[in-house]
Amino acid sequence: MTTQEYVFDLAERAKKASVALRTLSTATKNAALNAMADALVARQGEIFETNARDVARAEERGLTGALLSRLKLNEKKVAAMAEGCRQVATLPDPVGRVISGERRPNGLQIEQVRVPLGVVAVIFESRPNVTVDAAILALKAGNAVILRGGSEALETNALLARIISEAATQNGVPAGAIGFIETSDRAASSQLATLSSHIDLIIPRGGEGLKKALMSVATVPVIFAAGGVCHVFVDQSADLNMAANIAVNAKVSNPGVCNSLETLLVHRQIAEQFVPLVSQKLGDQHVVLKGDERARSLDSSMQEATEEDWAAEYLDLTLAVRIVDSLDEAIVHIAKYGTQHSDAIVTTSYANAQRFVYEVDSAAVYVNASTRFTDGFEFGLGAEVGISTQKLHSRGPMGLDALTSTKYIVRGDGQIR
Amino acid sequence: MTTQEYVFDLAERAKKASVALRTLSTATKNAALNAMADALVARQGEIFETNARDVARAEERGLTGALLSRLKLNEKKVAAMAEGCRQVATLPDPVGRVISGERRPNGLQIEQVRVPLGVVAVIFESRPNVTVDAAILALKAGNAVILRGGSEALETNALLARIISEAATQNGVPAGAIGFIETSDRAASSQLATLSSHIDLIIPRGGEGLKKALMSVATVPVIFAAGGVCHVFVDQSADLNMAANIAVNAKVSNPGVCNSLETLLVHRQIAEQFVPLVSQKLGDQHVVLKGDERARSLDSSMQEATEEDWAAEYLDLTLAVRIVDSLDEAIVHIAKYGTQHSDAIVTTSYANAQRFVYEVDSAAVYVNASTRFTDGFEFGLGAEVGISTQKLHSRGPMGLDALTSTKYIVRGDGQIR
Repeated sequence: MTTQEYVFDLAERAKKASVALRTLSTATKNAALNAMADALVARQGEIFETNARDVARAEERGLTGALLSRLKLNEKKVAAMAEGCRQVATLPDPVGRVISGERRPNGLQIEQVRVPLGVVAVIFESRPNVTVDAAILALKAGNAVILRGGSEALETNALLARIISEAATQNGVPAGAIGFIETSDRAASSQLATLSSHIDLIIPRGGEGLKKALMSVATVPVIFAAGGVCHVFVDQSADLNMAANIAVNAKVSNPGVCNSLETLLVHRQIAEQFVPLVSQKLGDQHVVLKGDERARSLDSSMQEATEEDWAAEYLDLTLAVRIVDSLDEAIVHIAKYGTQHSDAIVTTSYANAQRFVYEVDSAAVYVNASTRFTDGFEFGLGAEVGISTQKLHSRGPMGLDALTSTKYIVRGDGQIR
Repeated sequence: MTTQEYVFDLAERAKKASVALRTLSTATKNAALNAMADALVARQGEIFETNARDVARAEERGLTGALLSRLKLNEKKVAAMAEGCRQVATLPDPVGRVISGERRPNGLQIEQVRVPLGVVAVIFESRPNVTVDAAILALKAGNAVILRGGSEALETNALLARIISEAATQNGVPAGAIGFIETSDRAASSQLATLSSHIDLIIPRGGEGLKKALMSVATVPVIFAAGGVCHVFVDQSADLNMAANIAVNAKVSNPGVCNSLETLLVHRQIAEQFVPLVSQKLGDQHVVLKGDERARSLDSSMQEATEEDWAAEYLDLTLAVRIVDSLDEAIVHIAKYGTQHSDAIVTTSYANAQRFVYEVDSAAVYVNASTRFTDGFEFGLGAEVGISTQKLHSRGPMGLDALTSTKYIVRGDGQIR
């Protein structure tokens, strides 16, 4: 079988499964999710053996450090995957929720109801737990899923998919509902992205390279979870201790994630007081600062920031610092260099807070809080499929609703037009 | 200037305008819409002169009949465009509407609010009134718009766009908010579809050819308003007079539109009684029937239906008729041949009604009503951007909300994570 035939066959099975999934009861889905949790724990010995082979191959290829430890599974990680299954089982089922409805003057009762999307493809890299995360969220929202993971975790991912798929089908989920692409042939991704007859949505979770490659070929709708160049703007009216705490938290609490701070903008009127204060606190946390000329004049230990720094998503303990003359300049800077992810103002001015939240065009805008809160769990969505920085369908943290569509149900008693 | 430079320049102007449009007041937008209405009526002499040149050229090229009359403007059509502007002014502004919100345990106040998409491109064919329709809906939702119409109406469309754009900018709308592509170079469309740095959404309103051409090149998100192969299924329990009335209405009240009936499915248990009844009523309305073998045995005047007929969107007074053995067979037929637009069951059975509305995966599903109601105005949306048959972002009739995105606004008092 060619890769093309193989992917098409998986897509056919997923599409067939999606018909039965559409009306699968919440109880059945939840029972399957709990059975998946049990199966993962029960079969963890097998998982570790398989994972050890992937890890050994990765080491041979020279993989080290964070990337290697992301690949390596242990009891704690398997327990976390199982816990994820049980948690998703406790979430409200999005399918069937009535979003709006009314009786029209002609007597027609119209309601708009959430329904599954159908078939969702998820392409991801490295971390094997995404195999389970993506499958359980897709299942809870009533979708069939086709998974395609990174080649270094191929054997581990394939086993995880097999374990949860078997547990699911033994508990009333139709066969084909959880498909996994067991080949590292790159052609499989582009084929998924062009199978618009079978696939309703494709979600790439990976680097910019993957996104660009898919964007140029995809005919299937894509939701990108792009990077975050996030800003904190410290207004002239800010509580400076609050501002320093927010800046430090947004930068250091988890520098490797997309909602962490990358550029600090400081109003010139309080720069002389604020820059030394925040510099010291950030320095204590080993943050390297790169400043514009005015910032460096207030802290000579700063490196020089270049044009590239304003657009940089460092994802480490580096922070760009710029002094601005006004709120307007801050807003223009964010529009020019930001990625419309998460941006915050620290201020005591009502007018400036209002302007910032309405004029800054980002998925999440903050007043007097850390950008690190942009997250499905922190926002109360109960789960997170990813954080969308695109404007269509779903923007910001994506919960289960992002994996659904809607339909109109119209009930009448013979109405004609 | 090359076409590429020209389109890029329009997109730059639109993107710049979109910043000011984001926070433009409802009052300003409504005043501009009313001024556009006044300007269209005041300058209708100029519109007719210009339109006459497009019409003359089209006649020279051999355009006749419905296509020519769609192109030709008169006082009534200009009055309808003006009325459209005034009606959109009366609609509630979608921008700023709070969709959901809560206070989180840590005290953060989170709200999800509707915001404009930014820049919307609309590519359409033939009817000049779409120039005005698309521009006013985009404006009301706070978007800049770039319009690209059919070549046969180029001069008319360009003038309409100029008139409304001038009226808008004289009333506080930023310059560049309404852009029109004044070239018939086909490269302009594919460039719009790939300017993802500037354009947030592209809506093609035209034939399947346009859609396929865009789909293969687009990197900008696209919403397709695809065709409708709509079904009415007459269940064995149906009130047969109601069923006949619905079938006739769905077929003949406006056969050229996407929500009109194309295939009638009849349960075999009532076929003997129902087929002669509906055949006569449809015959009275000059509908040509194409039946499967069993249908033809009940009405010998029917033509033979082939496999192609089940998938045909006739858009005229032709109707395919098929006898099915069961609700299941009807649901399978609709899934196989339909376009997931609008499908109806006529029944007195609660169980069959429930199964039909939940198992048929269409944008609108009906019980005991005509498919012709799938329409933004009939559904109470107040306006219609089109009818989406795709599942992402907006499905079914698209109102102003479909031209918006959302953002999260988070207000705190120093929260860190």
